[in-house]
Amino acid sequence: MDDAPLPQLIRTLSKLPGLGPRSAQRIVLFLLKEEAKGLEKLIADAMAVQQHVKRCERCGNLDSASPCHICTDPRRDVHQLCIVEKVSDLWAIEQAHFFRGRFHVLGGLLSAMDGVGPAQLNTVGLRERLEAEQITEVTIALSATIEGQTTTYFLSDLLAEAPVRLFTLSQGVPFGGELNYLDEGTLSTAFSDKRALSSCAA
Amino acid sequence: MDDAPLPQLIRTLSKLPGLGPRSAQRIVLFLLKEEAKGLEKLIADAMAVQQHVKRCERCGNLDSASPCHICTDPRRDVHQLCIVEKVSDLWAIEQAHFFRGRFHVLGGLLSAMDGVGPAQLNTVGLRERLEAEQITEVTIALSATIEGQTTTYFLSDLLAEAPVRLFTLSQGVPFGGELNYLDEGTLSTAFSDKRALSSCAA
Repeated sequence: MDDAPLPQLIRTLSKLPGLGPRSAQRIVLFLLKEEAKGLEKLIADAMAVQQHVKRCERCGNLDSASPCHICTDPRRDVHQLCIVEKVSDLWAIEQAHFFRGRFHVLGGLLSAMDGVGPAQLNTVGLRERLEAEQITEVTIALSATIEGQTTTYFLSDLLAEAPVRLFTLSQGVPFGGELNYLDEGTLSTAFSDKRALSSCAA
Repeated sequence: MDDAPLPQLIRTLSKLPGLGPRSAQRIVLFLLKEEAKGLEKLIADAMAVQQHVKRCERCGNLDSASPCHICTDPRRDVHQLCIVEKVSDLWAIEQAHFFRGRFHVLGGLLSAMDGVGPAQLNTVGLRERLEAEQITEVTIALSATIEGQTTTYFLSDLLAEAPVRLFTLSQGVPFGGELNYLDEGTLSTAFSDKRALSSCAA
């Protein structure tokens, strides 16, 4: 019975991030409701992704075309580049609709613990890309972790000679953040990087 | 872009029970990790379910065979029948490994609010089934809701003439239940249905 199709699909679903045996079971029963044709639709959509989605050879994004729709969008500011760790970071920035430049996905962060060195990062051709696309401003948008900071230093070193202005994200109190719940590092950074209120005379 | 394969699959997944746009996105990125072949496996497993899983014509369970593996298992106690609302209830009872009889899935509960009447329940042939399979004991295992109780009364009426002993589930304090968190109905039922401790003399 345990290699039968139904338990097999439940097991496969239960290994997906955020799901477990119970939620996978609920999903399978939902998919099998005949009127909704849920299973049929899921299979069709997953096969379309399997057939059409590829990695963008230029920036590392996942899309149905390579170069992806961001790399080929003429309305984007071609002089700005944002370097991110992974595709989900790119999507998060895209969904916030504030950045109009292009991206470069590293595919990871330097980590001695996980054995990720510079060779594992998608940096080959990055400097050539800056030149070829006439990029003038690079924002390194990595997580504020040890690995993220190490990688930011590595990238700033790698791009030190390139004719671009380099930026990294500001650190401080997050939106909606309550002071008494913040860690000491964030608090002390928010103090040391404090900004003048425009209404106050300098 | 919004009817492209990737957003389409994310949208389909985000409509599954327990998932939303963020978790669907995480799942898609997980599925697209090349080394894991997650997408390939999900498609294969879902197609196997689509091709092989059907409703058991005898009990209403979902399985790769009809009659299902429970209905045809010679080790099960053929004289006991458990009536449940839906397949997930059947699976929950199966996973607890205490009931060794067979099942009958109603496919719903009587509900004036949702417009479910006796004709929508899978009760056609239920009395004939009791006779044909020589069932002597029926346990009606429905949720302890208004709809569940109404349906239990309806079934006990329907089966009143059948030569079987009818049972319903006991009600009371659930395992691990803390008294101060229980509702009044459960508390008063647990008192009125109180049972004698075997160590006490009557």
